[in-house]
Amino acid sequence: MSSFIIQEQNLRNFTEAVFKKIGCPEADAKLAADVLIASDLRGIDSHGVARLSGYIRLWEKKRINATPKITIVHETPTTATVDGDSGLGLVVAPFAMKLAIEKAEKYGSGWVSVRNSNHFGIAGYYALEAVRKDMIGIAMTNASPLVAPTFTTERLLGTNPMCYAFPAGKYPPVIVDMATSAAANGKLEIAQRAGKPLPEGWVQTNSGETTTDSHALKSGGSLLPLGSDREHGSHKGFGLSATVDLLSAVLSGANYGPWVPPFVSFLDPLPDLPGLGIGHFVGAMRVDGFRPVEDFKTHMDKWIERFKSAKPIDGSQPLIIPGEPELEAEAQRKINGIPLVNSVVKDLNEVAAMLGIEGI
Amino acid sequence: MSSFIIQEQNLRNFTEAVFKKIGCPEADAKLAADVLIASDLRGIDSHGVARLSGYIRLWEKKRINATPKITIVHETPTTATVDGDSGLGLVVAPFAMKLAIEKAEKYGSGWVSVRNSNHFGIAGYYALEAVRKDMIGIAMTNASPLVAPTFTTERLLGTNPMCYAFPAGKYPPVIVDMATSAAANGKLEIAQRAGKPLPEGWVQTNSGETTTDSHALKSGGSLLPLGSDREHGSHKGFGLSATVDLLSAVLSGANYGPWVPPFVSFLDPLPDLPGLGIGHFVGAMRVDGFRPVEDFKTHMDKWIERFKSAKPIDGSQPLIIPGEPELEAEAQRKINGIPLVNSVVKDLNEVAAMLGIEGI
Repeated sequence: MSSFIIQEQNLRNFTEAVFKKIGCPEADAKLAADVLIASDLRGIDSHGVARLSGYIRLWEKKRINATPKITIVHETPTTATVDGDSGLGLVVAPFAMKLAIEKAEKYGSGWVSVRNSNHFGIAGYYALEAVRKDMIGIAMTNASPLVAPTFTTERLLGTNPMCYAFPAGKYPPVIVDMATSAAANGKLEIAQRAGKPLPEGWVQTNSGETTTDSHALKSGGSLLPLGSDREHGSHKGFGLSATVDLLSAVLSGANYGPWVPPFVSFLDPLPDLPGLGIGHFVGAMRVDGFRPVEDFKTHMDKWIERFKSAKPIDGSQPLIIPGEPELEAEAQRKINGIPLVNSVVKDLNEVAAMLGIEGI
Repeated sequence: MSSFIIQEQNLRNFTEAVFKKIGCPEADAKLAADVLIASDLRGIDSHGVARLSGYIRLWEKKRINATPKITIVHETPTTATVDGDSGLGLVVAPFAMKLAIEKAEKYGSGWVSVRNSNHFGIAGYYALEAVRKDMIGIAMTNASPLVAPTFTTERLLGTNPMCYAFPAGKYPPVIVDMATSAAANGKLEIAQRAGKPLPEGWVQTNSGETTTDSHALKSGGSLLPLGSDREHGSHKGFGLSATVDLLSAVLSGANYGPWVPPFVSFLDPLPDLPGLGIGHFVGAMRVDGFRPVEDFKTHMDKWIERFKSAKPIDGSQPLIIPGEPELEAEAQRKINGIPLVNSVVKDLNEVAAMLGIEGI
């Protein structure tokens, strides 16, 4: 699959050039590229430059504004609502997280709900901004509807990820960053390319039957919430996804549920939208708002050590600390480069040709 | 099963009398009873008076302090750590939530981590305190270890519930209140009483194999995280449970992971504990810290209406809004009384006899 390997800096330069070419100010282009490259470095290939052409096509349709005037529309000492002016989520969400961190520096914690934004990449990027300041970082976003709530056949929620990140001492941070669906859409694409059936419990048909057909979404099927079915707790996955939707959109004035605008440019948003764009929710809490940072880190390390030493079912597969595989991928890809599948290379070179810049 | 029905006020009087008899001040006894009765009213029978004898037995062992001196040990304008002085979680957690709400009233949001506490009943009780003030309420707690993280056979985490509650307008609040395991322990007890096998994916044996044996925990088995297995996202359930543990205990200085003291009095805490008691984490955010309350409630109502009208798989089972079944049970039980199974009646009368007060 990965016949092409590119060095981080080259992919970064290319991505910045693309964003600058559509009119993003230099600093915004750098920032947006940084969010995408962070995803590719961490091995979350579905959320990195594989999505670059998607952003550009939404910009072509005038659904993404390359020069947004991002504003704070409502505020208390520790809370705010930000309007992203249809900007790239990759630029709007960093603004929101910076604001949350500033509030936390002054008052202990800061919480920002965001409306009128677009796809923001990986939630973990923002939560880690807080971790670097010895804060606990929280980030979530709603997304285009693909998931049917328990007992229903309608796609009413996105894969709505939530992320919590905690600084540790001698170990890397613990980063819980997860879609609230049983499986993310990217896993379906992998099965499609391999021509393999899905495990039961990931998707259902348009009449609500479990199916192993990796193409079921194309005929009106839907992803299932984490838990897969009622007996195994899918109402919990639905509840978590609903929580993300309410904090990100009902709280900020963005679109929610089935009204979240599609990420793909060939589908138009629904008529009579109840809000503006898509929504995010980010937060930061100072660790030393609760206990001295060194005490906290000492116990984080002890927690990590105890869990890493848990007795494995199979000796060849030890417990994985949340966030660990992504940090290992990052260390490795920073040295060896980032592998891209052929379809992504082709896609990026088409974007380059369209914009009249050099390809990769 | 429910041959015995008792009116709310009678059960409340009895429960208050029990707490007063062990030495709780009048106000604390009323408060602790209110938390337990709220659970029984809402149909969460496992977390109401069914646990009363458990609290009393821990008090007998001097592991619960009936007259705690609850203190704030660390604080910023919007964050705090509270030490519960080994008090009832049913008294300590209300103190913490009140503090979070006071901070939110002044600064927009408030967050309190709690150490040196005990089992706090249902998370939803605390989150709803915030909802009554037009705030979003958050509550979570760690708990005695019963759940094995993905890939392991060791019980390292509790069923660690998390709750998010949101006020609505003409509809009742949306309350997402969920254990982060695939199934809670109470569901195993129901299967045991009925002599029925469990669905696969709830528990595993002591060697990590899925089993349908409802008694598997008695022979070293463990509950599974939400998601059940790696393929269906159990690493996400593990991540959520870890998040609850870190916010509740590593942040406050309580015990975490396998060191959380058992709720049952016949099991002693492990030696060399890294913290004090069990931990909770509660928070409150003012809705009007983000947008006008009326706007928010209008959109909450629209969200609820849209989801309630979702196309059902089976016409006889419509979508359930999180929190709705509990509110329906409450309305019904306030009128018709609270059903108690015989074993709970017996247990409560044994407690009464032991303390020398009138039974139910």
